[in-house]
Amino acid sequence: MENTINIGIIGIGTVGSGVVNMLTEHKELLKAKVGLPLQVTKMVSRSFKLESPIEGISMGEEPYEIIEDPSIDIVVELIGGLEPARSYIIDAISKNKAVVTANKLLISQHGFEILKLASERGVPVGFEGSVAGGIPIIRVIRDALIGNEIKMVRGIVNGTCNYILTKMFNEKKEFKTVLTEAQSLGYAEKDASLDVDGIDSAHKIAILSFLSFGADTRFRDVYYEGITNLTYGDLQYAFDLGYKIKLLGIAEKLKDGISLRVHPVMLPKDSILAKIDGVYNAVEVVGDYTGPTIYIGKGAGSKPTASAVVSDIVDTARSIYQRKKTKKGFSFLPRITKPNIVDISELQSKYYIRLEAVDKPGVLAAISGIFGSNNISLKYVLQIERHEGKTVPIVIMTHISKEKNIKNSLKLIEKLDVVVEKPVMVRAVDNETQWSKRRYGA
Amino acid sequence: MENTINIGIIGIGTVGSGVVNMLTEHKELLKAKVGLPLQVTKMVSRSFKLESPIEGISMGEEPYEIIEDPSIDIVVELIGGLEPARSYIIDAISKNKAVVTANKLLISQHGFEILKLASERGVPVGFEGSVAGGIPIIRVIRDALIGNEIKMVRGIVNGTCNYILTKMFNEKKEFKTVLTEAQSLGYAEKDASLDVDGIDSAHKIAILSFLSFGADTRFRDVYYEGITNLTYGDLQYAFDLGYKIKLLGIAEKLKDGISLRVHPVMLPKDSILAKIDGVYNAVEVVGDYTGPTIYIGKGAGSKPTASAVVSDIVDTARSIYQRKKTKKGFSFLPRITKPNIVDISELQSKYYIRLEAVDKPGVLAAISGIFGSNNISLKYVLQIERHEGKTVPIVIMTHISKEKNIKNSLKLIEKLDVVVEKPVMVRAVDNETQWSKRRYGA
Repeated sequence: MENTINIGIIGIGTVGSGVVNMLTEHKELLKAKVGLPLQVTKMVSRSFKLESPIEGISMGEEPYEIIEDPSIDIVVELIGGLEPARSYIIDAISKNKAVVTANKLLISQHGFEILKLASERGVPVGFEGSVAGGIPIIRVIRDALIGNEIKMVRGIVNGTCNYILTKMFNEKKEFKTVLTEAQSLGYAEKDASLDVDGIDSAHKIAILSFLSFGADTRFRDVYYEGITNLTYGDLQYAFDLGYKIKLLGIAEKLKDGISLRVHPVMLPKDSILAKIDGVYNAVEVVGDYTGPTIYIGKGAGSKPTASAVVSDIVDTARSIYQRKKTKKGFSFLPRITKPNIVDISELQSKYYIRLEAVDKPGVLAAISGIFGSNNISLKYVLQIERHEGKTVPIVIMTHISKEKNIKNSLKLIEKLDVVVEKPVMVRAVDNETQWSKRRYGA
Repeated sequence: MENTINIGIIGIGTVGSGVVNMLTEHKELLKAKVGLPLQVTKMVSRSFKLESPIEGISMGEEPYEIIEDPSIDIVVELIGGLEPARSYIIDAISKNKAVVTANKLLISQHGFEILKLASERGVPVGFEGSVAGGIPIIRVIRDALIGNEIKMVRGIVNGTCNYILTKMFNEKKEFKTVLTEAQSLGYAEKDASLDVDGIDSAHKIAILSFLSFGADTRFRDVYYEGITNLTYGDLQYAFDLGYKIKLLGIAEKLKDGISLRVHPVMLPKDSILAKIDGVYNAVEVVGDYTGPTIYIGKGAGSKPTASAVVSDIVDTARSIYQRKKTKKGFSFLPRITKPNIVDISELQSKYYIRLEAVDKPGVLAAISGIFGSNNISLKYVLQIERHEGKTVPIVIMTHISKEKNIKNSLKLIEKLDVVVEKPVMVRAVDNETQWSKRRYGA
């Protein structure tokens, strides 16, 4: 139909169904806002079949029925993964179709290639659904804060990890117990490694970084650590010291480059990010004019992600509405520069360290000697229980120290006969918004 | 210049200077993002003169030099107030110029008239700077959550009140002391009534309401109360009961209409909104697909507001860039409906009530008798000190009650000989996100 924006959806999962429902339920509202009706005309899936047909939507199994259909204006890719998703998107853009995707893995690795092609073709590409579902963080950074030089983006961007950390702390349970529960409830994947090892957060921080800094940063540039070695005890010790532990993704612009990293952080327990619990996500963006701004919402789920995909469809539809008249679409291409990535070893922070060591005379002296010779001064040393000859936890907070000195010390400490497990280390911050100023001596 | 977006600014205050600085500092960045350079070519002010001229900007005193200049694409109105700002904007739109304004008073009263004219003319109008400066809340509601039916918007939208309440609580000071300090520091106006009486918040909630609900709601539809009758004692009693008091603006869609109101609210002290202190603003938006989302940032100030105005300039410039080719611009016109406004007397809530009463036998019985005969049951009654024959505070928390019953009771209680001051009443909520479901029996 000439006077309709026709949409084809590749991949029918929970998000795809959510998109169809939202477009159907709010059909009149959206028509009023776009100027033309939005109509899903085709959906394809190789694995899934609808129980009953939906009026006006033809179902198929072959993605190229959508990509090569001249009547389709917008191709929505919701199958996820690198291939064949990448080829579908590249081929759709090559056929001058607008593309909307929620594929964080793909965008975090091939975002630049895709946006470059889209820009050359004058074709809009939306990927709001790829980061923090219900929080419109892509649009905020791309449009709303557009006049700002972004200094830092950081946040809780993986709901599974946040759910696990929240449960561990509230219910005094260990990581594996909570993970197993979360898996049986469907809150975590059977293979949870993408989430709990920090990889998913690293994908998202790569995307937020290239949007914020207009720089060619990708997943491979992000240093990441997960939450698998944290115990309930660590969360409780942290709390007793005035902190909550959260897994943060962080992208910040420094004098000499960009630092991209994902790792657990001890945040002051009264700070906003420390209060974000369960499946909620929160992203803090610091612009040079706005100062710090924070965005909070549900990070995943069929409905919040559908909301993100639909907002992209509307944005895209508006520019198609214009393009139908001008033959030239709006496109977004960040300035492509390859920045210097500052290594994690350059980080400066306070550090929480927990050791499991045999309680005997001379142990603390040996440990503090190693820290001292690495220029690390200790703020607290808490030996929780005293059981001469048994293994006891020793909890240490350092003053601000260099990451490379910490890691050197831990390597030496690990080799001590009296230390029985790999030490646990968590970086700590005291002041929420001033954090980035203190590190790297900047 | 044909290949430039030319901007004229009416009103040179702190925001105007911020806008010029931002456009100058980030000139290249913005040019890359818009596709054309953005150039301020004229600024006018009747009261203010620049000490030294700015290259490329002609200065004047007559606003119609901008409004009637055919080379100007975007008119930025930053003088505030109803007239002559309204006429300038109407005349600019009538000359097919795009308009950007940060004028909350004007938009809260004449927003519909202005948007209607703009829509007929196909001219874009931006007003991001009118609500919550550094928080891009207009764009979030208008674009990012576009597929959602918005159920509720509420938030801390007046930085002056939030600063005063924060200071009162943290420094154990009374309202008048803190207000005087804030005035001498320039954080509050000499005539602070617009802020502390809740009027400014009511302007903003009127704007957020018409954006969220696409309904013709204006300032006159908003019930408002300020913070002038709150004492340090009220904030401390509330805290002891587990709450912080914040001035909230609230717009919510109910079964039988829309409720628009501004009044102090007791929020659970662990909730996100309760943690927003000082000059920060926070707005919570509940969409049917996203669920609750929260947006936090600086609500006022030259730089955050300049950021909002510049994001409107960019958005507007992009549509002009299109319009130069299509002769048709994008415009935003909410569905104009006149909704039923639900009266505040229909509210159901818990209520905190503080009375100053003479401590003598029978006083509590008389007071609780009045509540009882109005169907109000009391959760706590705290008589803070005992001084037979002297005036003492009595703090009461009710169970969920009807506002009209509370107000009837207070009228009767006020007339008791033993009650020496007008009672203070603050509405309380226990569950942050579930709040709206509980009231109105909905």
